[in-house]
Amino acid sequence: MDVELITIGDELLLGFTIDTNAAHLARELASIGIGIRRRATVGDVAVDIVSVVREAIDRTGAVITTGGLGPTSDDLTKPAIASLFGRGMQLDEEHLAWMEQRWQQRFHRRMPESNRAQAMLPEGATKLVNQHGSAPGIWLEDERKRWVAMLPGVPREMRGMLADTLLPILRTRVAASRAATVVRSRTLRTTGVAESQLADQIDPIRDRLGPIALAYLPAPDGVDLRLTIRGVSAAEADTALETAAHLLREHIGRSIYAEGDTDLASVVLDRCRALGLTIAVAESCTGGLLGARLTAIPGSSDVVLGGIIAYANSVKEEFLDVSEAALVKYGAVSEEVVRQMAEGARARTGGAVGIAITGVAGPSGGTPEKPVGTVWISAAFPDGTGAAQLRLIGDREEIRRRATQAALELVRRVLLEKN
Amino acid sequence: MDVELITIGDELLLGFTIDTNAAHLARELASIGIGIRRRATVGDVAVDIVSVVREAIDRTGAVITTGGLGPTSDDLTKPAIASLFGRGMQLDEEHLAWMEQRWQQRFHRRMPESNRAQAMLPEGATKLVNQHGSAPGIWLEDERKRWVAMLPGVPREMRGMLADTLLPILRTRVAASRAATVVRSRTLRTTGVAESQLADQIDPIRDRLGPIALAYLPAPDGVDLRLTIRGVSAAEADTALETAAHLLREHIGRSIYAEGDTDLASVVLDRCRALGLTIAVAESCTGGLLGARLTAIPGSSDVVLGGIIAYANSVKEEFLDVSEAALVKYGAVSEEVVRQMAEGARARTGGAVGIAITGVAGPSGGTPEKPVGTVWISAAFPDGTGAAQLRLIGDREEIRRRATQAALELVRRVLLEKN
Repeated sequence: MDVELITIGDELLLGFTIDTNAAHLARELASIGIGIRRRATVGDVAVDIVSVVREAIDRTGAVITTGGLGPTSDDLTKPAIASLFGRGMQLDEEHLAWMEQRWQQRFHRRMPESNRAQAMLPEGATKLVNQHGSAPGIWLEDERKRWVAMLPGVPREMRGMLADTLLPILRTRVAASRAATVVRSRTLRTTGVAESQLADQIDPIRDRLGPIALAYLPAPDGVDLRLTIRGVSAAEADTALETAAHLLREHIGRSIYAEGDTDLASVVLDRCRALGLTIAVAESCTGGLLGARLTAIPGSSDVVLGGIIAYANSVKEEFLDVSEAALVKYGAVSEEVVRQMAEGARARTGGAVGIAITGVAGPSGGTPEKPVGTVWISAAFPDGTGAAQLRLIGDREEIRRRATQAALELVRRVLLEKN
Repeated sequence: MDVELITIGDELLLGFTIDTNAAHLARELASIGIGIRRRATVGDVAVDIVSVVREAIDRTGAVITTGGLGPTSDDLTKPAIASLFGRGMQLDEEHLAWMEQRWQQRFHRRMPESNRAQAMLPEGATKLVNQHGSAPGIWLEDERKRWVAMLPGVPREMRGMLADTLLPILRTRVAASRAATVVRSRTLRTTGVAESQLADQIDPIRDRLGPIALAYLPAPDGVDLRLTIRGVSAAEADTALETAAHLLREHIGRSIYAEGDTDLASVVLDRCRALGLTIAVAESCTGGLLGARLTAIPGSSDVVLGGIIAYANSVKEEFLDVSEAALVKYGAVSEEVVRQMAEGARARTGGAVGIAITGVAGPSGGTPEKPVGTVWISAAFPDGTGAAQLRLIGDREEIRRRATQAALELVRRVLLEKN
């Protein structure tokens, strides 16, 4: 079963908004065995909406749109698509009453007149409940079973409605169709190993992975290995993916830090939690990014004590006991200083693990000896301290992100040896 | 002049990769007066590539594709589009020699055989130089002046080729066309004021903004006001936008913190720099996010000293001199504690401004008195300390981001009064 996806909005087309809805929908639909054949984006222009939806209906007969259901005057989607089905618009009294009540309760004032448009629905439409906003989604279907589902464009509302309402409907349809095949994927995440090196390690066993597409996806965090299988039943897909993932783990297991979209910070936190270790950070060039990444994980407070953003040298000395002598002799970006930072973070906070980063994130500040991208990382444990120098590429944002990733990987590798 | 944009790749269609290329292209093209009428995405399937490109050529006659130029076996774009123009493929000896030399120089080994495909070009194609990778871009044009420009999918390569090669070509074409009109936008950024409240303030002067589309764009950082004008010359557009922006600044100037995509952190840094003030942060629930945001700005080191990630209460006491009594009596999420954190950050680092955040970011940890989203922020200055309680909505990530935004806005508002 294939659908086409149409995202609507000037903001998307003009490039002011990145289209994250399309990716989310694609992943969610794939997980229940629905493929997206094509995706299109048009602006808030009725004639363009009509033509792109018409083409998709003619081609595939199953269309999901996002956007253009809001209260503003550029709300064109509903009447445009209704006209395509030969339907007029009519006021949904029930929804109007619900909206008026909601405004009274939430904002303590009368609903603005402009919001009435949200209660206008195509004749014969089915409402899709929106628990996260005021515009209902719409399901329109003709006598030939061709359908269009219209979802809101606000990501939070779209995601809620998809999960609450549309996916259950589609799941039922998929189950009813005879030969449901799926597209399923698994992602194994690696970091610190070059794509070509991974390929050299995997090539000898490539044939044993079976009918699975293997994609190498390089990104600042490392290379993700995406395994994808299509055209088989859900059970067959899961078995084939499990077998392939197992084989890869046997061969390059140490390089794989997680599956799916799990962040390395989460892996390190889990490992520390299991070992009863707490963490303190000491950050210079990353300025809090490592701490922010660790504490982005819910429940991190039982492992992360906090740490020091030691951007200025005075803070390195005052809060981390970095010696002035080391700063003068070796400079702030040096093995001596990063080790003192990591050990200082441990000693001063009472944490078990100290993680430190200092480097030249650019764009300025580089020298011939320490060009932009030169970063020292260190991890201090109760039984010793390790450090490594990195030569990172990319802009300031990438260098900072790569530095946090490398520091976390250093900790993960050390913890792999500990019981 | 309109073009259509087609992004190609299974990863995009499956939703594993967010399509940032499309947005970047749209903005860059708009800036030289080229509009995007439609955008489409298809997977690495030759028949789909052919049909979507054919439709776009028939409709608009000007098409830009991204993706599918790489060395891997799913490289289908070039031959698919060549077939549409009735062209075969031929080896470009010059490019092959260049690639082989590049491999020797950069990787010190022979180029893999699989890379030869990158040197196969459609007959009669013009190469677009790629300074950031090995796949050249391609320009194909027929006798009716209909054209397709094929760019690589890797964002860095695509952006480089666009700037270096394609934009100059297109700029020449736009200049040659008689009545070049543009689409231009300006964005005024506000935070801490609800969309409806902004609308109430702007409505009385709405008619005086002239022939400009005004969009309210709510996001976790606040509401951006986007002014867009289209169908006029570049000079007319700039004048109209300047007049409208000036009028808005007259009426709601205090609420506008920046233009374009400038981050509030950058505004605060500039203001502090002008006043000779340094900053230190004290972060609990945001765990380093405020520091990371401030230090993401190049050149922040002359203002930001650093600070304390005071996630655990022991760190609040040890490094910020927060009193145990206040923690016990009021709890870590309280006005007393946030003020002590901000003042402690100042006092302990010697910074002029201390900015503190403590709150319940969720998803757990909420209580009836302090539900998830309860956040206290504080800004301490040499002449006094301010604090505010926030009730933020959204998930953990949004709450943390909103908390840093509100803290920065608190500082900005105070600094507005200072000379």
